Amino acid sequence: MLESCRRPDLVTEITLQPVRRYGVDAAILFSDIVLPLHAVGVDLDIVPGVGPVVVEPFRTRRDLDRLPELDPGHVPFITRAVGDLVGQLGGVPLIGFAGAPFTLASYLVEGGPSRDLSRTKALMHGDPQLWRSLLDRLSQISGEFLRVQLAAGAAAVQLFDSWAGTLEPVDYAERVLPASAAVLARAAAESPRAPRIHFGVGTGELLGAMGGPAGASVVGVDFRVRLDEAARRVGPGTAVQGNLDPALLLAPWPVLRARVLRILRQGARAHGHVFNLGHGVPPAADPRVLERVVELVHGADPATIAGRPRTGTDDGIL
Amino acid sequence: MLESCRRPDLVTEITLQPVRRYGVDAAILFSDIVLPLHAVGVDLDIVPGVGPVVVEPFRTRRDLDRLPELDPGHVPFITRAVGDLVGQLGGVPLIGFAGAPFTLASYLVEGGPSRDLSRTKALMHGDPQLWRSLLDRLSQISGEFLRVQLAAGAAAVQLFDSWAGTLEPVDYAERVLPASAAVLARAAAESPRAPRIHFGVGTGELLGAMGGPAGASVVGVDFRVRLDEAARRVGPGTAVQGNLDPALLLAPWPVLRARVLRILRQGARAHGHVFNLGHGVPPAADPRVLERVVELVHGADPATIAGRPRTGTDDGIL
Repeated sequence: MLESCRRPDLVTEITLQPVRRYGVDAAILFSDIVLPLHAVGVDLDIVPGVGPVVVEPFRTRRDLDRLPELDPGHVPFITRAVGDLVGQLGGVPLIGFAGAPFTLASYLVEGGPSRDLSRTKALMHGDPQLWRSLLDRLSQISGEFLRVQLAAGAAAVQLFDSWAGTLEPVDYAERVLPASAAVLARAAAESPRAPRIHFGVGTGELLGAMGGPAGASVVGVDFRVRLDEAARRVGPGTAVQGNLDPALLLAPWPVLRARVLRILRQGARAHGHVFNLGHGVPPAADPRVLERVVELVHGADPATIAGRPRTGTDDGIL
Repeated sequence: MLESCRRPDLVTEITLQPVRRYGVDAAILFSDIVLPLHAVGVDLDIVPGVGPVVVEPFRTRRDLDRLPELDPGHVPFITRAVGDLVGQLGGVPLIGFAGAPFTLASYLVEGGPSRDLSRTKALMHGDPQLWRSLLDRLSQISGEFLRVQLAAGAAAVQLFDSWAGTLEPVDYAERVLPASAAVLARAAAESPRAPRIHFGVGTGELLGAMGGPAGASVVGVDFRVRLDEAARRVGPGTAVQGNLDPALLLAPWPVLRARVLRILRQGARAHGHVFNLGHGVPPAADPRVLERVVELVHGADPATIAGRPRTGTDDGIL
């Protein structure tokens, strides 16, 4: 996995495949959340069926020495891949990608898979100064990783905070949000007009903070929160992205179609909406179903959708 | 695990241990969510590190034949254990325990661990009639399992819907809630005055439905939602239970203490509050810390807590 992320030819091919097959409106850079940590020298591997495993987990202030700041010289293959992709994508925008400081910290501190992130939270509460130093360093790494992608031609960025949904809102606001805001500020300084997408899962209680306060222009919403309620929480001035339950890709087409249309209708009343899945594609999903979803979204008339009344064919769930 | 749950001597001992050690205000029956399925003859095992594994997963209407209704004759060891416990507990109330129909269905349909419950959701959407039949049967099994415990002397019941938080609110309301409500109605018919606790994780968007509409008197709240916001969503007439993040048990005492007091303060303004963890105890937690938490909760004066002003010693997080 990490080797694939470091080979511009593979990154380019894998990034282009969904654009070719589905005709989606944007490409997202194929990469992995822990790639920038690997690039600055952290000894880690992605173990199939397990996830990222860090050989020497982060425990003390001395471990900061093993975590240097990232500079463009650490990731020449990213500059190259983004440049190649922008050339081959023509008018299709490329979205850059990075993991957020909290999620990166959780991999470093836990060292391997964890259900409750209890070591990470113990560090956050037990040594707030070291926690802040760690998140500061990670916000530099994550922010510079996005900046390099923007400098090479990415048209937007997406910041993934996969594990933010395990936090109490007060801890997110006080101990995590400032670091993510610093990442997005670095992106904004490089390309003020490039949209900044902020993604998480199970983050229903954090949506407000993840929008304006974090400096995001778009907030990802999983399927647990209705999109109209999510738009209310995110507030005016910030768009929403989502929020089809990926498991619906395995449902009969009339059910899936009704859900897609409901999402489009709720999205049309938000302050901007990017249609997307609320999480990743399940391996069992039929690619032809994804094709039909893209066709349905592209064929939908926003004006009609926004004003579309309930009808009997909506199966009562719209 | 399943053998332990079927031996009244072990069930009694394990149920009593936390009462003896911590002096908590109630005992909860030591059992496992899948025990009643095992009791009616489903071939399954609890595999260490994996969870429940069902030998022949539920796929078609014929599989309903392998899932007979539960009667008290299936679980004589439960009647015996509850009776013994009530005798030994003296004045301490015993809370009965069962898994909710959706969570039981997910184990039957997935057959083993699953991240996204996509097979379960595919059945729910792909064959709504079979889904309803399955949940009807499971609500009989779960409800009768609770009724047996109440008949044997349990003073309250707790219905665990471990995986409800993976559902969109609309699916919970239409395809799951009616079955859970039937379980709690069966409990209410046996013992109208026994409190009915309804527990889930990641269920912030479902709290309203899990309270009054489900027939619950208390709704469990994990740590992702502030307790005061949870009380608002649950609405008047229903109490809340929770919501300490179990990971805080590994934090320094002043941080943990401040969180406990904040929860008590928010709970004092709810329509009834049962202090509890938002999820299970992490294996790394120090039992002496749990003792201190129980002491703190027992020593707290509700009147003082409800009116307690912010102070500097609260470390800014209260």
